[in-house]
Amino acid sequence: MTLAGALSKRENDATALGILARSKALVHPALLTATRQLDDELQRVIGHHLGAGGKYVRATLALLSARAAGVSERVGLPGAIAIECVHNFSLIHDDIIDGDVERRHVATVWAKFGIGPALIAGDALSALAFQLLLDAPTEERVHAAQRLADATQAMIVGQAEDIASEEELSLTVEECRRMEAGKTGALLSCAASIGAVLAGASDVLVENLSRYGEHLGLAFQAVDDILGVWGDPSVTGKPVGNDLRLRKKTLPVAIAYAKGFDVLAVSSSPNERELSHAEVSEAIVLLEESGARYETQELAETELHAALAALDRATMEDSARSELAVIARYVIERDQ
Amino acid sequence: MTLAGALSKRENDATALGILARSKALVHPALLTATRQLDDELQRVIGHHLGAGGKYVRATLALLSARAAGVSERVGLPGAIAIECVHNFSLIHDDIIDGDVERRHVATVWAKFGIGPALIAGDALSALAFQLLLDAPTEERVHAAQRLADATQAMIVGQAEDIASEEELSLTVEECRRMEAGKTGALLSCAASIGAVLAGASDVLVENLSRYGEHLGLAFQAVDDILGVWGDPSVTGKPVGNDLRLRKKTLPVAIAYAKGFDVLAVSSSPNERELSHAEVSEAIVLLEESGARYETQELAETELHAALAALDRATMEDSARSELAVIARYVIERDQ
Repeated sequence: MTLAGALSKRENDATALGILARSKALVHPALLTATRQLDDELQRVIGHHLGAGGKYVRATLALLSARAAGVSERVGLPGAIAIECVHNFSLIHDDIIDGDVERRHVATVWAKFGIGPALIAGDALSALAFQLLLDAPTEERVHAAQRLADATQAMIVGQAEDIASEEELSLTVEECRRMEAGKTGALLSCAASIGAVLAGASDVLVENLSRYGEHLGLAFQAVDDILGVWGDPSVTGKPVGNDLRLRKKTLPVAIAYAKGFDVLAVSSSPNERELSHAEVSEAIVLLEESGARYETQELAETELHAALAALDRATMEDSARSELAVIARYVIERDQ
Repeated sequence: MTLAGALSKRENDATALGILARSKALVHPALLTATRQLDDELQRVIGHHLGAGGKYVRATLALLSARAAGVSERVGLPGAIAIECVHNFSLIHDDIIDGDVERRHVATVWAKFGIGPALIAGDALSALAFQLLLDAPTEERVHAAQRLADATQAMIVGQAEDIASEEELSLTVEECRRMEAGKTGALLSCAASIGAVLAGASDVLVENLSRYGEHLGLAFQAVDDILGVWGDPSVTGKPVGNDLRLRKKTLPVAIAYAKGFDVLAVSSSPNERELSHAEVSEAIVLLEESGARYETQELAETELHAALAALDRATMEDSARSELAVIARYVIERDQ
């Protein structure tokens, strides 16, 4: 925590990018190697997706959590690969569900290859995660696989709640947070502890690393929700107010609703799936008036502090703790 | 084998239906109970799919394989439920991929709820299978989960090859069989041995039950291919020559092609996704001329005998062996 606290944003960003690049250099090739057991066509489809980039935040947490437990990052590698398999399976399927045609300025899998091949590619990555962990089933790997299965299911349930909320007029702030804890928090929590699980670390350490990941997930998602309304389109690669356009029940919308601002009611045609450009602008004005932007930012910072507090509660290797703190701060201060 | 051999088709069918009904009565409620850990909306979507019926062939094999190993069918139950989770996940996703709007005369999941909810429901069932087996990870359950992950991946790869073959002019008979061994054989092989694995049976028994399932899968798929061309629409619930209409590279088509009959070349508009009604009729005439129907039927019977031979090679509880033989014969003689 000292390191994260002592750095300027620019220094913290540079440090974080260095850590992420180091993990990516380790995990990306290992992930491609793991997909070689699939057939050529699946490899081509998955290769296109993985080639589009990605920051490897989850893989980084997995590796750092092994170091936190006092062992080499290599011990966390199978966990890092498995987590990235599940994460990328969810991205590929989410793009089908949301009808998104670009991700990181590259065509999404379904847009390039069709819904069938994209669906199958996601399914293959999902099964691959469990194959990798159960291939040489030590007690630690089985425990990791068990936790990954639970986290994957929590993520899927969160995603289902997210879809179901499209039909609802509003969510309470609590419902929204619960949905986001599943959708984003569960896999981050699993990632931030899987290396320690593979290292056979104590329950206390595993528990505190999980908490760190859970709070980080909620902070991450709150920032995502802010960027979904106020993000710079030239940086995020998405239209202005993209989440509002899609009528998403995000934190700012739920917070505003609780204060009497029914932001999505600006729509004059409730049966249209999307808000018009003018309606999005009007919704943004209402959100600003309600103070929801500031409150969502506050929530993100509260979660960041809770994540850092969880790190401080457990005994762990110091440099790993510092780097986990740097990653957390980087995630919260990002603008894309 | 004696029992299967001594019965008339009608007697064998009746015996098989009794065995299947008994398994369904055990597994169907247990499967619904397992889905209760998901959220209400997912339960509703999955409940619609499971409510449409299903013969529970795979669950039955799982239960019988426990009995084959000399223990109660109850020991195989977690395996039976997990296998049905994976099987139903694949059906729900396949219906999206194929654009099928009905299954067993009921609206498919995507047709009723949309692609997003169907995709998510399949994902949830897939993760649930591993959650169930890893929940209380004894050595036997971990072994079962490992085999299920491998079988699931083989099924997915077979499905990917099936989709990729749509772009190809033809498959060799060998390519077609390999694809079908993955698409159908892998999960049946896992089902037919998972109860024995959970019972901690010998490698020899597990191996022979797997072989039985693998051959049964190939026989099953050969019969499926015959019904896809010559099945009675009033019984199968699908249009005449449905597989031909969709230009599927099935066994009869591959066998005919190897003999110089390019059945799918009847199409005058190669860019259309589907064959016309007249083209389907013409393709059926060509298939008949080639003798492919008879040869596919012969292949199914050869695989049935190989399945029964695998059963006879291992020491196992006699009534389970008889019932596995009855199920195999039933599957091959079915007309839907």
